[in-house]
Amino acid sequence: MTDRSHNFGAGPGVLPEPVLLQAQQDLWNIAGSGIGIAEHSHRGKVFDKIILEAEDEARRLAGIPDNYKVLFIQGGATQQFAMVPMNLLPAGGVADYLLTGVWAEKAWKEAQKFGTTHVAVSGEGSKYTRIPAVAEITYSAKPAYVHLTTNNTIYGTQWKTEPPVPLGVPLVADTSSDMFSRPIDVSKYGLIYAGAQKNLGPSGIVMVIMRADLADAAPAALPTMLQYRTYLKERSLYNTPPTFAIYMVGLVLKWIRETGGLAGMAERNAEKAKLVYDFLDQSALFQAPVHPDSRSLMNIVFRCPTEELDTKFLGEAGKRGLSGLKGHRSAGGMRASVYNACPRGSVVALVDFMKEFELANPVRAGASGQV
Amino acid sequence: MTDRSHNFGAGPGVLPEPVLLQAQQDLWNIAGSGIGIAEHSHRGKVFDKIILEAEDEARRLAGIPDNYKVLFIQGGATQQFAMVPMNLLPAGGVADYLLTGVWAEKAWKEAQKFGTTHVAVSGEGSKYTRIPAVAEITYSAKPAYVHLTTNNTIYGTQWKTEPPVPLGVPLVADTSSDMFSRPIDVSKYGLIYAGAQKNLGPSGIVMVIMRADLADAAPAALPTMLQYRTYLKERSLYNTPPTFAIYMVGLVLKWIRETGGLAGMAERNAEKAKLVYDFLDQSALFQAPVHPDSRSLMNIVFRCPTEELDTKFLGEAGKRGLSGLKGHRSAGGMRASVYNACPRGSVVALVDFMKEFELANPVRAGASGQV
Repeated sequence: MTDRSHNFGAGPGVLPEPVLLQAQQDLWNIAGSGIGIAEHSHRGKVFDKIILEAEDEARRLAGIPDNYKVLFIQGGATQQFAMVPMNLLPAGGVADYLLTGVWAEKAWKEAQKFGTTHVAVSGEGSKYTRIPAVAEITYSAKPAYVHLTTNNTIYGTQWKTEPPVPLGVPLVADTSSDMFSRPIDVSKYGLIYAGAQKNLGPSGIVMVIMRADLADAAPAALPTMLQYRTYLKERSLYNTPPTFAIYMVGLVLKWIRETGGLAGMAERNAEKAKLVYDFLDQSALFQAPVHPDSRSLMNIVFRCPTEELDTKFLGEAGKRGLSGLKGHRSAGGMRASVYNACPRGSVVALVDFMKEFELANPVRAGASGQV
Repeated sequence: MTDRSHNFGAGPGVLPEPVLLQAQQDLWNIAGSGIGIAEHSHRGKVFDKIILEAEDEARRLAGIPDNYKVLFIQGGATQQFAMVPMNLLPAGGVADYLLTGVWAEKAWKEAQKFGTTHVAVSGEGSKYTRIPAVAEITYSAKPAYVHLTTNNTIYGTQWKTEPPVPLGVPLVADTSSDMFSRPIDVSKYGLIYAGAQKNLGPSGIVMVIMRADLADAAPAALPTMLQYRTYLKERSLYNTPPTFAIYMVGLVLKWIRETGGLAGMAERNAEKAKLVYDFLDQSALFQAPVHPDSRSLMNIVFRCPTEELDTKFLGEAGKRGLSGLKGHRSAGGMRASVYNACPRGSVVALVDFMKEFELANPVRAGASGQV
C-alpha cells in the first residue's frame, strides 16, 4: 500500500482506503448478486438498500430531525446556487448572502438571476482573510433565507459556529468543504448542501439536507430536476440517479461512523490542522495569511516569502509524493487540504518536509515578511 | 469469472468486463500517479487527459464534424428534457415532438413549461407498438427544432433511420438507449443526448453532441448549469464534473473502438437481437408485441399467454442467473435489454432457457393468442 501518494488536493479529494478496497470488489460483483454496483438497476433491491442505508447513515451521524429529508442531487454545488433561490425565494422576497469568498460570491451572483438579494456582510475588504464578526452583519428587513458558505476552500477560512439569523428565517449553508468534518446541529438550518467530492465521496453527487416544508413553495413551472420536491417525493429516485456515487457516499458515511462518528472526526481533524498551524506559527519561512480565529481546519493556506520559493517548494514536495499542494490559481501560494479521509500520516509527512525545506532554505535577514 | 450473472437490466445496464477490471485497478492508483481516479483533481493533468480522450474517442467513433462539440452534463436525460427547450426554443417559437413512448412523452411534457409545442405524430393509438411511418408526421409551419426518441426502452421500438425534417430545422434526439450501438450520422442532427447508463458507462453522466452555434441563442438568465454554453466554453469543466463517470465513459468508448467501432457493434447487436427475435417468431408460447419493422435491437419485449406464466418464467430465469428480465412496470411481461456490453453468450443462454421453458410449459390448444 506504499504506492499511494499523500494527497492534499482540494477536491475531488482523497478517499478512505477501506472504501476504495470495498469499491474495487463491488464494481465486479456486489453482495453476491453477480452484478457490479455500477450495473444494478436503481429500481432493484440491491440499490434500494444502498440508497436507504446512505440516508440512514447520514441521519445517524448528524442526528437529523424527522422533519428533514436527505436528498441526492446532481449538478454540484453550482446547481444548488440556482436551485436555492429558484425554490426558496418568492417573488418580491429578498435573500441575504454572507460573502466570505469566491464560492459565496458565486452563489450570490447566481441568485441575482432569480430575485432580489442583499449582501448582509462582505469580507472583501479584508481580502477574505477572516470570517466577519457577528456585529458586522446587517440583515435585510425580512429575508426569505440567509445563505452562508461554512468553509472557504480558496482563502482557507471557516465559520467556527453559525451566525445568528433573524427568528424564523431559514439558514441555508453551502457546506461542500466541511460537511461531516465535525458535529452539525441540523435543526439550526433550513437547508444544507454539500458537493460530495471533498469529505463525502466522489464528485457527481450533492447531499442536501432540508426541512421538508421548505420544498412546498416552489413554482411548479421550474424544471423538474431543479425542484426539491421532485427529490422529496421520489426519494431521489425520480430518474436514474448516479448510483455509483451514492454507493460511495454510503460507504464513506459508514466509515465515518465506524471510526468515531462526527465527534471523532472533529477531534482528528483538529489535531491534523494543529500540526500544520503550530508549525506555521513558529516558522520564519512560511506565512499563514488567515486570521487565527478564522482558520479553516480543512484547507490550510500558506506561502513562502517569494513566488520562486513557492514554486521550489511545490516541485520538491511533488517529488516526495506530497501532491495537490498548489494554492488556487486566484490565491497563489500553497494549500494543504486535510479533509476527513486525509490520514494523520500524510499531515506528519507534510510538516516533516516543511521543516526540512525551511532548514534548506533559511530566511535571509530582511527577506521575509510582506508579500 | 463465472461469478457474474447474465444481466439484461434496462439501465443502469451491464458494462464491459475489461472496463470493470481496469476500473478496479484505477480506483486505487491510476497511471502510476499514486492517486485513484476518483481522487484526482478535475484541474490536474491526469484527469484532463481522461476527459480529452473521452471526447476524442467519441469523435473518432462517430466521425463527429468539427462544428459539433461533445459535452458531459449531469442530471440525466430528464434534465435534457428541460435544457433543450430552455436553450433552443425562443419566445414565440414552436417545438415539434414525435411521440413514440413514455420517454418521448416526458420530454414533450417538460418542454411545455418553457414554450409552445406541437405533436407532429403520436403512436399512442397503436399503444406505441410501432414507429410511425414518415407519411403520418405533420410538422408545424416553422419548428424551432424537432425532437425524437431514437429507441423506446419500455415498448421495445426503435427508429431504423432518422425521419426527414423540414430544411434547416435542427433534429434533437434522445439516444439514451441506443447511442453508439450503431453508426450515427451526426451531421443530420442539431443536438444528440444520451444518458450513459445503457450503452456508454455508469449513470450520472449524459453525453451531449451539439452543433456549437445552437448554444448561442439561450437567454443569459438561465441557471448557469442549464446553459449549454457553460459546457462549451469550459470544456464541461466549469465546475467539478463527475470525474469517475467521465473516466468510465472514456473506457467504454475505447472498448467500442477496439472491438470494431460502431460498425462492429451494430453487427454484433443485430446478431444478438436476431437470435431472440427468430426464436420468438417461431415460438408457440412467447409473443412479441412489436411490429417487426419497428423492433428495437436494444430492448426486446415479449410475454407469455398469461401473467402467471410470465411470473413463473421470471422466477426460473432468475434462478438460472438470467437477471433483469422483468418488463417495465407500465408494460408488464418481459424485456431483455441487450445493450452493447451484453455478451452474445448471455443472449444464447437466454434463448436456450426460453426453449427449455417452452418445452416444459407446452401451450394448450386455445390457450395462446390474445392477451
